[in-house]
Amino acid sequence: MLMIKWFGIGHCTASCVLGLRLSANDAKLFFSTLRVPCMRDAYLIGAGQTPFGSMPEESYRSLFDHAVSEAIDSVDHGIDTNAIDEAVVGSLGVGGRQLGLSGPAATEHAGLHGVPSVRVENACAASGYAVRQAVQAVKSGMADVALAGGVEVMTDMSSDVTKYWLGVSGETEWERLTGTTFSGVYAQMASAYLREYEASEEHLSMVAVKNHRNGAKNPKAHLGFECSLEDAVGAPVVADPLNLYHCCPTSDGAAVALIASEDVVGQYTDDPVRIAGVGAASDRVGLFQRNSYTSISASEMAADTAYDRAGVGPDDLDFAEVHDCFTIAELLAYEDLGFCDRGEAPQLLEAGTTESDGAMPVNLSGGLKSKGHPIGATGAGQLVEAFKQLTGGAADRQLAAPKYGLTHNVGGSGGSAVVHILEREAAR
Amino acid sequence: MLMIKWFGIGHCTASCVLGLRLSANDAKLFFSTLRVPCMRDAYLIGAGQTPFGSMPEESYRSLFDHAVSEAIDSVDHGIDTNAIDEAVVGSLGVGGRQLGLSGPAATEHAGLHGVPSVRVENACAASGYAVRQAVQAVKSGMADVALAGGVEVMTDMSSDVTKYWLGVSGETEWERLTGTTFSGVYAQMASAYLREYEASEEHLSMVAVKNHRNGAKNPKAHLGFECSLEDAVGAPVVADPLNLYHCCPTSDGAAVALIASEDVVGQYTDDPVRIAGVGAASDRVGLFQRNSYTSISASEMAADTAYDRAGVGPDDLDFAEVHDCFTIAELLAYEDLGFCDRGEAPQLLEAGTTESDGAMPVNLSGGLKSKGHPIGATGAGQLVEAFKQLTGGAADRQLAAPKYGLTHNVGGSGGSAVVHILEREAAR
Repeated sequence: MLMIKWFGIGHCTASCVLGLRLSANDAKLFFSTLRVPCMRDAYLIGAGQTPFGSMPEESYRSLFDHAVSEAIDSVDHGIDTNAIDEAVVGSLGVGGRQLGLSGPAATEHAGLHGVPSVRVENACAASGYAVRQAVQAVKSGMADVALAGGVEVMTDMSSDVTKYWLGVSGETEWERLTGTTFSGVYAQMASAYLREYEASEEHLSMVAVKNHRNGAKNPKAHLGFECSLEDAVGAPVVADPLNLYHCCPTSDGAAVALIASEDVVGQYTDDPVRIAGVGAASDRVGLFQRNSYTSISASEMAADTAYDRAGVGPDDLDFAEVHDCFTIAELLAYEDLGFCDRGEAPQLLEAGTTESDGAMPVNLSGGLKSKGHPIGATGAGQLVEAFKQLTGGAADRQLAAPKYGLTHNVGGSGGSAVVHILEREAAR
Repeated sequence: MLMIKWFGIGHCTASCVLGLRLSANDAKLFFSTLRVPCMRDAYLIGAGQTPFGSMPEESYRSLFDHAVSEAIDSVDHGIDTNAIDEAVVGSLGVGGRQLGLSGPAATEHAGLHGVPSVRVENACAASGYAVRQAVQAVKSGMADVALAGGVEVMTDMSSDVTKYWLGVSGETEWERLTGTTFSGVYAQMASAYLREYEASEEHLSMVAVKNHRNGAKNPKAHLGFECSLEDAVGAPVVADPLNLYHCCPTSDGAAVALIASEDVVGQYTDDPVRIAGVGAASDRVGLFQRNSYTSISASEMAADTAYDRAGVGPDDLDFAEVHDCFTIAELLAYEDLGFCDRGEAPQLLEAGTTESDGAMPVNLSGGLKSKGHPIGATGAGQLVEAFKQLTGGAADRQLAAPKYGLTHNVGGSGGSAVVHILEREAAR
């Protein structure tokens, strides 16, 4: 075993148990010759969220504060807010309450003082990207502990106002001007899918039934009730072929994840959850400009990168939280994330593979469909479920000793996507 | 000199000229024993911007595209857009044209396909934070080349609409509800400063005169004309004691910086500009909640971190681009950034130290005051000036062989701040 003790950086020297003395320049050359990608590992050491739902008594600040508190409380050995080096807050800023500086405004209220704080926005993938950015902050060496979260308040506005704020998250120059909303865009994807493959509207409803069944076991779910296939098939049409049960709700809520470097993770937990791989990608924002209506290439690219970096494949996963803003999106996710081949998502569903007791449970939290979809909080909320599952805190929804989980967060109709693969390192 | 050749990562072995063979686990232990902060250096390899001004014929997308093109053209040995691994776009999103997914929407139009793209927002510090995020992406090992920029379109709206969009970037729950605008907030800071120190309104005007003199040499400046002290003193009052010449304009514009890792910088330039230090911090968003009205503690903290990481101090700097949204802000910046002691900014100004031919030229580009302030583009625009100065491309404004430059970007009235210190490594 080669050991070198290093007494600082800069124009110092290092003493080496091999008897060598290295100048800073020698050391620099040594490292550059090594060409080891200079990445340190990042770990998820805590995660928490508010309930998702309609909470007129809360503000974006109070919601974020609650989520920060729950995340902090979830850290195995505890953590002081002073240990947090920086913060990233995902939010679309629906309603324009605090459009500018809403990162610092949210974090100051949560008791984080002075640290760099910034808002990131990528429509519905805002806090998935916030988590990714926190991972970069930690891997870069510029932070040892980074807080990443998201928040949105959506239910205290008229549906026209909500429609405006969501509308300007679609492609505004052409799609929005033709009157297309997100349900319209996903309805086009659903139509294309039903035409192209052996799939029916009932498959769209089966996703809703499954996710409501899971969400009914999640006390934080917005629509935490079960629904029958009959209900999910017969609901009023929103945008043909999508009916009400094929659409997620708009919700209020916040979620927060705490990311720590490998150098400090041991201070916070003996049961580390490693962020084994992260991938992200973007695509044309307008659906009409894409190559395919029946796949989301940003999801595919993000997943490929994440699998590659984690050194695992879909078969290694024990569960996944995927972006089911509309139930068609979950079918596309099965295929984009490599859970099955193109056109085979309906069979996966029929076989029960993605049920909570199947080989590959998907959306144990209830997903966006049942748990809810407070835009900016959704991506970080997926990490909350993954953290609970991997650390044994998922109560009635708990899987037996999962090792790998995946989260998949999509912006808009696929203009952006981000995938995290999480690994529980210790054997239970 | 110690040299180790490394043949990959994972469960491989490394061969060492010292005759040792290292397993991957040994190597991991070796690195963790070293405890060298695992940071690789990041370099500014190119930067470009549109003119700042009123450009009703342009959209946020076309502006961003122009800035990307200029940044790419500025790279010494050239660069293909395919080499760009990710993109970060700073924007407040004034006007709400494309509130969601405006990162991917901007970058797709600029010919970047597939790569992760995200918008960051920190009010007027949006693209300063975007650059910082690109630095983290590169240092993390997750990107070799990252594009960071910003864009804003502000001049095609009525002043009431602009006022709304800027208003929701101040502290909205208390400050904005009392009717305070940013000129009002900075007027309070100016009042406090004039009361506390030996300073007069004329000092506020002297900043304007200096920055307009510089901006008159910048073909990209929005208000690229000189103004007399008489004009700058006698202008109509906006918010007492601030008059029209104490306020920057609202502008349209975009700016882009290209950041590369030390591993690839040699492919792009023989005259590398290292990002020697980055610091960022936040503070209470509402001025009324701060400890001081005559300093911006986020700027102080950000500068301290940046100096510390760069291993240089204010005396080492050859120039600085500071955030002069109102001329009082430039006086505060002199003190917050350590160019002089508290209360001594007026003397620094009177001595001509911060003039273009002084010992410490400030805002050679014209600053926000004369060059303009397209909110989301401002921070990256400061990097453009620094890049030009350090690589000898600043034409009529060119300093003789500067080595160190600093950029300082503030969000709102100081709710956030970010400082970059840039170092030209080669001697000219």
